[in-house]
Amino acid sequence: MTAASARFDRVSVIGVGLIGGSFALGLRAAGACKNVVGVGRNPANMRVALELGIVDSVETDAGVAVRDADLVLVATPVAQFGELFASIVPNLGPSTLVMDAGSTKQDVVAAARAAMGARIAQFVPAHPIAGAEHSGAAAAKADLFRGKRVVLAPLEENPPERVDAAAKAWEACGARISRMTAAEHDAVFAAVSHLPHLLAYALVHEFAGRPNAGQLFGYAAGGFRDFTRIASSHPEMWRDICVANREALTGELDRYIEKLRALRAPLTAGDAPALEKVFAESREARNRWIAGGFEP
Amino acid sequence: MTAASARFDRVSVIGVGLIGGSFALGLRAAGACKNVVGVGRNPANMRVALELGIVDSVETDAGVAVRDADLVLVATPVAQFGELFASIVPNLGPSTLVMDAGSTKQDVVAAARAAMGARIAQFVPAHPIAGAEHSGAAAAKADLFRGKRVVLAPLEENPPERVDAAAKAWEACGARISRMTAAEHDAVFAAVSHLPHLLAYALVHEFAGRPNAGQLFGYAAGGFRDFTRIASSHPEMWRDICVANREALTGELDRYIEKLRALRAPLTAGDAPALEKVFAESREARNRWIAGGFEP
Repeated sequence: MTAASARFDRVSVIGVGLIGGSFALGLRAAGACKNVVGVGRNPANMRVALELGIVDSVETDAGVAVRDADLVLVATPVAQFGELFASIVPNLGPSTLVMDAGSTKQDVVAAARAAMGARIAQFVPAHPIAGAEHSGAAAAKADLFRGKRVVLAPLEENPPERVDAAAKAWEACGARISRMTAAEHDAVFAAVSHLPHLLAYALVHEFAGRPNAGQLFGYAAGGFRDFTRIASSHPEMWRDICVANREALTGELDRYIEKLRALRAPLTAGDAPALEKVFAESREARNRWIAGGFEP
Repeated sequence: MTAASARFDRVSVIGVGLIGGSFALGLRAAGACKNVVGVGRNPANMRVALELGIVDSVETDAGVAVRDADLVLVATPVAQFGELFASIVPNLGPSTLVMDAGSTKQDVVAAARAAMGARIAQFVPAHPIAGAEHSGAAAAKADLFRGKRVVLAPLEENPPERVDAAAKAWEACGARISRMTAAEHDAVFAAVSHLPHLLAYALVHEFAGRPNAGQLFGYAAGGFRDFTRIASSHPEMWRDICVANREALTGELDRYIEKLRALRAPLTAGDAPALEKVFAESREARNRWIAGGFEP
């Protein structure tokens, strides 16, 4: 550990699932925290968290768990954030850093502002960009964030040193830090994450509702499998994300429908060169992306 | 080998890429053919095919290569089919079985009818459902079709024993055979294969054309990667498939746009239960599919 590294005495992780659990394991692996208290409603999951050494102790009351913590990560479903923020505020120390790990940011910031009042300066919104196909403490791993991006969406009220401490915590887990505003975050992720989920759910739902669903799925192969992988994502989580970010997502959906209509013209006309141009440009862009040719 | 198994003395594979090469290797591995002659325009690829033991000899003239063949597989890009069928017809023996491996069937049948005249009875349209991300003879493997589906779309003119011989050839490669009409085939694959490709190309193209493309791709992660994997597919091949099957594909595109518009309503309204219902039903259907719960 260098002097610049993160070092937390007591970390409180509220919601010890894939994200919260991996955050705790990542900090531990880096020697960046002494003690982790986990908060969760599901006793079986919390038992797993204890057995796997993700947490040192377990609390059911978040308000109790944040006492004496110098770092609090709220990693529950976003829908619970308002209630949780309200329950922890009375027991927060004056220098405790609070972060979330939600997939949307403007709604989380609004909930935090409403619940935390002047303590909002202690809250640094965060979004780790890491897959969430598997869930629960059992899926947590110390290297989940290694090489992954974590977006911080600092607030005007955050002192710079608090944002730095937030960055260092994620960096200790191996993540690369990006910073943007909450609005910018939600616009970008509406496009590259929320829209694809909506599109994948829509395609599967369309076919599942047809009289020949058995035939359609019976012939679906590898391309369909990968295209729709994210349609196996958690329905409640994606419901919450879509509702929270509905404005930006509706805008992206409209632009995509417009794009499909624009593609419909060369398709119906059998305009081979026009179709090939779109396909070739897409492939070129995607292959450039896969090769690491795009940086935010 | 049982008496019912396929056994071909001389197989002519026109287009020794992933599909054609794997067909040859699969037949060889099953002891189902004695001799394979390969036809291709790319000398380097044909050298690889020889070196890897995919073919015993190489011809550049398809008309010459089919002489004395009892089985011919046309596995070139579909756009070349018309010309190829015309070039092989004069040299086809009276009992030679001809198959294709194209991703669309109605256009292939039309091209075959136009070129083959009364010899059309010898042509059994086939579509092996096997990934085609990698290409060329170097990507060929004997077990590519093992457990995969091959759709045969027999013609009225095909004698039953010829269709059986076609089925046995693919079964020797480990494939499971399905039969449907060419029109039915094109309708099913417009939905579960051609539409997803169009949708993935469209999404990548939409983002690649924006001023903040770097930012968007910079934050795109695993979900986007899988959703768009098929947008790295071969542009010319997918151009040809889309043009060939444009009628059914336009119908599917329209239904999908309609589906997206129907989803737009609960999204803009923030109707959480309605969104969750769609997402949960999609996940349920997809998970059932992954578990093998749908059979055509």
